Formats: sequence, C-alpha cells, structure tokens
Amino acid sequence: MSDTGTLDALVQALRRLPGVGVKSASRMAFHLLQNDREGAELLSRALHEASSRVQHCERCHTFTENRICDTCLDEGRDAARLCVVETPADQAALERTGAYKGYYYVLMGRLSPLDGIGPRDIGVQQLLQRATDGVVQEVILATNFTAEGEATAHVIGEALQRKGIGFTRLARGVPIGSELEYVDLGTIAHALADRR
Amino acid sequence: MSDTGTLDALVQALRRLPGVGVKSASRMAFHLLQNDREGAELLSRALHEASSRVQHCERCHTFTENRICDTCLDEGRDAARLCVVETPADQAALERTGAYKGYYYVLMGRLSPLDGIGPRDIGVQQLLQRATDGVVQEVILATNFTAEGEATAHVIGEALQRKGIGFTRLARGVPIGSELEYVDLGTIAHALADRR
Repeated sequence: MSDTGTLDALVQALRRLPGVGVKSASRMAFHLLQNDREGAELLSRALHEASSRVQHCERCHTFTENRICDTCLDEGRDAARLCVVETPADQAALERTGAYKGYYYVLMGRLSPLDGIGPRDIGVQQLLQRATDGVVQEVILATNFTAEGEATAHVIGEALQRKGIGFTRLARGVPIGSELEYVDLGTIAHALADRR
Repeated sequence: MSDTGTLDALVQALRRLPGVGVKSASRMAFHLLQNDREGAELLSRALHEASSRVQHCERCHTFTENRICDTCLDEGRDAARLCVVETPADQAALERTGAYKGYYYVLMGRLSPLDGIGPRDIGVQQLLQRATDGVVQEVILATNFTAEGEATAHVIGEALQRKGIGFTRLARGVPIGSELEYVDLGTIAHALADRR
C-alpha cells in the first residue's frame, strides 16, 4: 500500500476533466495541495453541490436548479421564436448580443455518430414536441458552423420540414472587422451567394 | 438569485486550477454535469480526501499520508547521498531511471523572488539541518535547469559550502538521441567545457 494513495486517486480523478492528461493532473494536484488547500475544499464542495442540484429544464433542456429555468419562465419573450443551440455557452453568447428576445431549446450536445451520439441523445423528439405546440412559428437553427453542427442543423431542419414548421439558419458570411484577404474561401463563397 | 448559482460557483471553483481560464472551466463543468456526474462526485471526494490526509514528510518534505514517507523509511538506500529536487514529480523521474539509490529532499517549489518565494518557503534551513546530520557526505542538486532552478541550486550550493558539505550538480550536456545541429548553443558550450 502506497503512502500517497489519496494523492494518486486525486490525480486519477482530475484526469476525468476534459483536456487534462496525467502531467496536467499532477500539476493541478501539486498546486492545490501545496498552495491552495482552501481551493481544493472549495472545489470539492462546488462539485458535490452542482452535481446534486443541477438538473435539466423541462422546457428547454438547459441546466437549471429548478424544474423550469429562468429564461423559460420569462414571460416577456417572443413565444413565436425558438432558437436551437448546442450548449448553454452558445445560448449565453446569443443572449449577450441582446438581439434575440425569443425562447431557446438547448440540445446539450450535437449529433456525432462517431461518438455514438444520435438524435435521441440530443432530444430531437422533445424539440419537435416543443416546436409543434401551436405557438412557435419559427425555429432558428443556431448550432455551430462546424461539420457536426451543420449535420445537426440539417437533421433537425428535415424533421421540422416534415412537420411543416418554418425554420431558419443563422446567416453565414464575413465576420465583422475582417479583411477579405484573410477570410477562408468557403465563407466568401457563402457571403457572395447570400448577398443582399 | 440565479437559477444556476451552483453551476456558476463550480465554474469559479474550477478556475482555481492552474492553467484553467473561464472558457476551460465552463467546458469542464459542462462535461462533468452533462456526461460524467459520477466523475464529478469522484473528484469531489478525491479532493476532500487528499486535502485532509496528505501532509509533508518530516524528513524529506515530500507529500505523504504518514509522518515519514516510504522512501525515507526505505533502509536499503545509501544514506551518504541526498538528492535535492523541486517537486515530487522530479523525484519520480529520478526514481524511474533506477540510477539513484540515495535519499531525497523535496523543496516543494523553487526560489522565485518575483512570486515572493524565498529560501524560507522552500525549507533551505531544514535542508541544511538534514545535510549536516553527519551521515550525508554528498548533496546532489537536481533542481531544474531553468533560470529559477539554477538560482535555487546556486543559493543552496553556497549555503552548503559555508557548512563545509560537499555537493554536486546534475551534468549539463547534450541530451541522448539529439543532433548537435538542433541543440541550443548554451548546452553545446556546457557540453564542451565539461567534456570527459
């Protein structure tokens, strides 16, 4: 039996964090135990609290401590618009723009057949139910413009079309402040095709 | 009061980890809560266990759950040699070579005046006491070959010299498997000066 069993267990547990390998995990464990035991206890409590309290909003599927999240409870929003995003971070980015006042549906992921993540895992069925409540008139697909995000938007778009629900996709184009010379060709081609 | 208070607290707590900014912390929190609640609970317990059980070895200052660590209790080692390293990870690297059979003193840090870390913080006084026990004949300075590690070795070397204790430094030279063309000039100059 090693005399550093709990330390080894901590390094192993830190490796469960995304993007953390054995070297980073050792460095984190060393830092917390040598310089920041208070931080270690704080993080321990925060993990337990969040893990036991945070659940999914019944309407939009995002993280919340209640049955329905604050955004879905906000009656001042435009109920005819429903914006589909991949994660709460994407939702937060849209909120920060101040340009959208409708409701959200958070997939909490994206389609990724290689990782075994199919339509059921991102709750496409619940999204369709939500979108066919008779109030929603437009679903705005705001998944990321990555291969997986595009595929997710495509699959959801087809399902919405079969149900006869109108949907739009965020515009593809040249980002604000960029010089054409440095923008990738696919983006410029899209911006040309979608010119207005 | 936000309905995601515990989630925000978790993101803040994760930022106490070295090298983790707000984006990484959000990604980690999202991953744990969405895909790995078991990992979150595991990490929570591991942090608490390690933080409450791990202490410093009274002889070599490394992390241990006991009063004296296993390495210091190992009577098969050469008590005449004492190797000074910065961290337990450095000690582990030396152990893996299988080329050293003496004891260690782990500074648990390095001199870094800019961060307010002086000789007292890395236990130079305890090291001198340990090295003047009458048994130790050679102190091997194996701090890192960075600016701070070199400064640490220099300060400890001077203190040992005043006490009349013999010390050596790990050899500087060309790493195994490297081509001279790609080795930095300072290293080649050292390898030339120390040729044998």
